[in-house]
Amino acid sequence: MAKEIIKLDASFVSYGNAVGKKEYEGPLGALFDIHDTDDRFGKDTWESAESEMQRVAFNMALNKKGLCFEDIGALFAGDLLNQCVGSAYGLCGCNIPYFGLYGACSTCGEGIMLASILTTHKVFERCAAVTSSHNCSAERQYRTPIEYGSQRAPTSQWTVTGSGAFIIGDSDAGKVKISAAMPGKVIDKGVNDANNMGAAMTPAVCDTLVRYFKESNTRPENYDLIITGDLGYEGHGILKEFMSIEGYDLGDNYTDCGILIFDKERQDTHSGGSGCGCSASVISAYVLPEMEKGRIKRTIFVASGAMMSPDMIKQGESIPAIGHLLVFEST
Amino acid sequence: MAKEIIKLDASFVSYGNAVGKKEYEGPLGALFDIHDTDDRFGKDTWESAESEMQRVAFNMALNKKGLCFEDIGALFAGDLLNQCVGSAYGLCGCNIPYFGLYGACSTCGEGIMLASILTTHKVFERCAAVTSSHNCSAERQYRTPIEYGSQRAPTSQWTVTGSGAFIIGDSDAGKVKISAAMPGKVIDKGVNDANNMGAAMTPAVCDTLVRYFKESNTRPENYDLIITGDLGYEGHGILKEFMSIEGYDLGDNYTDCGILIFDKERQDTHSGGSGCGCSASVISAYVLPEMEKGRIKRTIFVASGAMMSPDMIKQGESIPAIGHLLVFEST
Repeated sequence: MAKEIIKLDASFVSYGNAVGKKEYEGPLGALFDIHDTDDRFGKDTWESAESEMQRVAFNMALNKKGLCFEDIGALFAGDLLNQCVGSAYGLCGCNIPYFGLYGACSTCGEGIMLASILTTHKVFERCAAVTSSHNCSAERQYRTPIEYGSQRAPTSQWTVTGSGAFIIGDSDAGKVKISAAMPGKVIDKGVNDANNMGAAMTPAVCDTLVRYFKESNTRPENYDLIITGDLGYEGHGILKEFMSIEGYDLGDNYTDCGILIFDKERQDTHSGGSGCGCSASVISAYVLPEMEKGRIKRTIFVASGAMMSPDMIKQGESIPAIGHLLVFEST
Repeated sequence: MAKEIIKLDASFVSYGNAVGKKEYEGPLGALFDIHDTDDRFGKDTWESAESEMQRVAFNMALNKKGLCFEDIGALFAGDLLNQCVGSAYGLCGCNIPYFGLYGACSTCGEGIMLASILTTHKVFERCAAVTSSHNCSAERQYRTPIEYGSQRAPTSQWTVTGSGAFIIGDSDAGKVKISAAMPGKVIDKGVNDANNMGAAMTPAVCDTLVRYFKESNTRPENYDLIITGDLGYEGHGILKEFMSIEGYDLGDNYTDCGILIFDKERQDTHSGGSGCGCSASVISAYVLPEMEKGRIKRTIFVASGAMMSPDMIKQGESIPAIGHLLVFEST
């Protein structure tokens, strides 16, 4: 088998985030940099609000370390909107070389991965990865406008209103290192229930994790935290079962960004959070600060994405998915 | 000013393409690897036909050099469909690490650029870049279903039904080298006419070209071919004017993929071709073979993309655009 782990020598220079009202009211609420009380971020449309969140999160990440646009060699950005307009409109005007990405909810991991590869190899001194999702723009596009009051399935996830921005430099630039990556493969196991993304994405995440453990010759117990984003409660349970069949007990150190961001009972979010902004905001608000404080040393983050469109589901197709893996280490 | 040119040491190992009926009937028809006489590629939907084109083009590129999926370290792929499903469904099952891209019509250039960076730095021995567009899936999604018979504006372009696949390795692997790249920036000069993409994209292409000429200290006359993809006739004319104001005469060596692929008079394609599949098929069917034969030595390719969505236009927004530049050299 060919070597598929990419060795990296990069670190997080800075990170920032912006979220909506429901996310602020969730268990991680106090950890977010910025929140808006009406999810509009001062804009007239949900799409423009999402773009504004990206702009705000990116500027927050820059400002924390006194950086400006000229300090960033390239931007990697994406979101869930058709033609990824959340990113293109939000980051237009930065005057920074731009690589648009589409990895559905995995885009945060894909962006951090490509940014880390380019800084590791000194193509640029610093790169940024920015992603977002907005509950209202996503509901309108993928399902039905919120005003319709559609019933949600118990397995469905709640698209997070949030954006996270990561500035990545060489391994001396920040306390939390990005030491390895394993890009995911597009895998379709025939799940066609668009209200159960956890089930659709789990096989791809399982594939990447098993490949990683085998090639790195490590096991789940070698990591303080294994976090997926975003399988939700449904996918979290399925992944534990799948990994157990493969001979790996994920144990209590395994959690999911979609589980952490909402209080399931109090916030009526069913299977948990989802969207490009979910893992981006949880990783930037919770995981990396905990690692900086030394409370978590070694983390595996698998960013998961369901690469479907509503049109393909209507045409009877099943849901291909992907899981991009990153290893973070702090000393 | 920070250095923005990326030095590359990569080459094209192989390339392949698949196109539709109209493209086969155009001036480059005899040069394409595969064409389908009814644009369906044996599938029931236009979206599945587009995915099938990607699969066919990628396999064609592999087969020409006796390569198989295991020889490819990573895939960079994208298309114009919502959530880039042309690529995700078309390349699902290849069992190759996958990076989804969204750069609108510039995705071909973005993919070749990232694939070349990763092979230059030996992250992978070989990477592939695959893109597509399909006239019928694009018309339905961006404008109106073809059956409605909408009138087309004189400045509008015709989305190409085509896919191109490029396999990229180190600089010894192929005759045509990829020696430099300059990623584009997202630029919005306020054009909001979705029927005039040429005008919307030209400022971004001009920005990249001027930055490149200045930093490389070269001029248009140092290149045998400067080719944009896809500004069409409208953008081609505007770019010549814009560049002239900047002090650069693009001269007769400047052309555009959207101009080359159709016969304007005979095929009623107005301002020319467009779509991720336009530059991908023209570069793979015409430019690279001409360079392999030594008829063209030094080429600048600027892949242009309009990063809008129909929703943003309906909300009164203007059209942000991007231009990714690559330099190809043959000896």
